[in-house]
Amino acid sequence: MRVAILGTGLIGSSIGLRLKRDGKPGAFDIVGFDRYADVARAALRTGAVDSLAESPAEAAQGADLIVIAAPVLAIRVLMEEIAPVVSPDAIITDTGSTKAEVMRWADEYFPHHTGFVGGHPMAGKTDTGPAAADPDLFVGARWVIVPNVRSSEDAIAEVTALAESVGASAMVMDAAEHDAYVAAISHMPMLAATALFSMMRASEAWPELSLLAAGGFKDMTRLTATDSAMAFDIAVTNREHAAHWLDRYIAALRDLRTRLMDVDAEDELFKMIAESEYEYTAYRNGKVGREEPKVGGEVSAMSFQEMLTGGWVRDKLDEVTQGSERRVGELDRRRRDRRDV
Amino acid sequence: MRVAILGTGLIGSSIGLRLKRDGKPGAFDIVGFDRYADVARAALRTGAVDSLAESPAEAAQGADLIVIAAPVLAIRVLMEEIAPVVSPDAIITDTGSTKAEVMRWADEYFPHHTGFVGGHPMAGKTDTGPAAADPDLFVGARWVIVPNVRSSEDAIAEVTALAESVGASAMVMDAAEHDAYVAAISHMPMLAATALFSMMRASEAWPELSLLAAGGFKDMTRLTATDSAMAFDIAVTNREHAAHWLDRYIAALRDLRTRLMDVDAEDELFKMIAESEYEYTAYRNGKVGREEPKVGGEVSAMSFQEMLTGGWVRDKLDEVTQGSERRVGELDRRRRDRRDV
Repeated sequence: MRVAILGTGLIGSSIGLRLKRDGKPGAFDIVGFDRYADVARAALRTGAVDSLAESPAEAAQGADLIVIAAPVLAIRVLMEEIAPVVSPDAIITDTGSTKAEVMRWADEYFPHHTGFVGGHPMAGKTDTGPAAADPDLFVGARWVIVPNVRSSEDAIAEVTALAESVGASAMVMDAAEHDAYVAAISHMPMLAATALFSMMRASEAWPELSLLAAGGFKDMTRLTATDSAMAFDIAVTNREHAAHWLDRYIAALRDLRTRLMDVDAEDELFKMIAESEYEYTAYRNGKVGREEPKVGGEVSAMSFQEMLTGGWVRDKLDEVTQGSERRVGELDRRRRDRRDV
Repeated sequence: MRVAILGTGLIGSSIGLRLKRDGKPGAFDIVGFDRYADVARAALRTGAVDSLAESPAEAAQGADLIVIAAPVLAIRVLMEEIAPVVSPDAIITDTGSTKAEVMRWADEYFPHHTGFVGGHPMAGKTDTGPAAADPDLFVGARWVIVPNVRSSEDAIAEVTALAESVGASAMVMDAAEHDAYVAAISHMPMLAATALFSMMRASEAWPELSLLAAGGFKDMTRLTATDSAMAFDIAVTNREHAAHWLDRYIAALRDLRTRLMDVDAEDELFKMIAESEYEYTAYRNGKVGREEPKVGGEVSAMSFQEMLTGGWVRDKLDEVTQGSERRVGELDRRRRDRRDV
C-alpha cells in the first residue's frame, strides 16, 4: 500500500513510525513531504517515511492513502496542490485540529471524490517535529472521524482502521459538534493559558514572579508552548466556538470571585472547592461523564453528598463554619476599631 | 538537635526524610505530630520522624526547632496549642502558603518570642501525605523567609540554614509582598483551574467532553486536585490579592477575546500568540525576568523582534496577512450572498 504523508511533523511522523513498526515488511511504502526540507529529512532519518517527494503533488500521485498532517490553514494549501493528481480511488484524510473549515475545503477541492474522510487524533504534546515523534503517541487516545455526505463506507472503514491500527479509539462525529467540543476542552484552554502567561509576563513584578513560579503555574501555562502556527490556525478556524467558551469561562471566574469575597458564606466556597477536588480526582481516575461511582472500582464508593454527612469533608466543614464565625467576628471588630479611631 | 514537626503530610515528612538522610546519625531527633493518627503513623513508618507525640504541646516541649507544616488555618490552632510550652530559645517556623495572617497569629501567640521566622517552600505536588514525601522535594525550589520585627539574627540564620539544607534557595521577603506574588502565580491559577474544571463538569456536554479531553485540559485543571482544606485556607487568608489577580485575568481574557474576533487584525493576534510562545519557551529554558537572551546560552540568541524581520515568524506572518485578506474576502462574499437571497 502506497501511503503519502503530507506534513512530517510530530503527528505525521508518529503515524509513519507506527505503520512501519507494526506493518509486515513491505506492507507500507510511505512517501513523505514537508514544506520545510529539514523536517522532511529528519522524518526520513527516523524511518517514519521510506522516501521523500519534492512536492505535495509528487507525493500524492499514485498514493492509495493520503494523510494530510499539517496546521489547519496549511491543509487548505496542500489540498489545493494535490487536487489535480489524486487518483479517484485514493483515500484521503487529515489530522487537523478544527474540522468545519477543513470539511468545507474538502467540498471545494474534492467535490466528487468519495474517498475523503476528515480526522482528528486527540493526542499530541507541545514538543514538535519528527524528533519528538513516537509510534505510541496515539495509544489510548480518541481519534475523531468526520465523514462528509459523499464519503463511501469503504473510505470510512479505511480511515477508522488507520486510527485503530495506531492504537487510538475511533469515534464518528460531525464537524460542528467536533469543533464545539474541542473549543471547550482544548482551544479555549490553550487561549486561556496564553492569556495567563502573557499577562504575568507583562506585569511589572515579572522578575520576582518568574523566580517564584513553581509547578502549578507551569502546568497552567504549558499550552502557551503550542506551536504558534498551529495555535493561530486553530484560533481563526474555530473562533466563534472559542469565543463562546471564553465568555463562559469569564462568567465562571466572576462567579468564583463573588464566592471568594463572600465572607458570610465560606461554607459554600469550601463545598465548591471540595466537590471540585472530589469530582476531579474521580475524573482523573477514569470516571467518564456522570456515571455513578463503582463500589470496588477505581472510583471512590462514597459520593460527595455522602461525604458531606460523614468523612473528613464533614469535619472540615464544621471547622470552616466555626472558623468563619470567628473570622467574621474579627473583621467586625477590626471595622469597629477603625470607626472608634 | 530536637526537632518537632507539626503536621507530617507531604511537606513535613519531606523535610523529615531529608534531615534524616543528610544529617549525621543522631544529629536530629525528630518528633512528629499530626491531627490524623494514620498520617502520623505513616510518617513514622517511612522514617520521616523518630517518634510520635500525642499532642502538639507534647511535641513542642523541649524542641530546639519547631516546624509547623499544616494548611494555613490549622497553623493558628497549632500555634495556640504550643504557645504555653515552647522554650524561650526555640526556633519556630512554618511552611504555610500565605504569610500575612500567619505573621499576625505569630504576633498574637508569641508576642515576646525572638525565635519566630515564617517560611514558605515554593514546592509541592497535588499528591498529599507521607506516602508522597520525597527528600528531594525542595531541590532547586525557592523558600521564602519572612522575619517579623522581633526575629533575631540567629533565628533568621537557622531558618535559612534549614531551607538550604533541604536543597532550596532561601529568599527574604515581607509577608504582604509574598502574598501578592503568590496570589499571582499560585493562588489565582489554582482558583482558575477549579473554575475551569467545575464549569466543564457542570456543562450538559460533559459526558462527551470528558471522553475527548486530552493532556492539555488535564494540565490546565490539575491544580483542582490541590487538597481542598489547603486550597480553602489559602483562598480565605489571601482573598484580596487573589481577587485582584482574578480581575486582571478576567480583563486579559476579555482582551484576548476581542483580538480573536477581530478578523481585520489577524496579524496582531498571530504576533501576540507567537511572542507568547517565544517568551514562554525562553522562560521554561531558564530565562528569569526580562534578561536579554544570551548568545550561546540556553536562551535563543534571536530576539522576538529580530524574528519578526527574519526567520520563520516572518514567513508565517506573510502567510497570515495573505490568508487574512483571503478570509476577509470570503466573509464579505458570504455576507453579500446572504443579502442577495
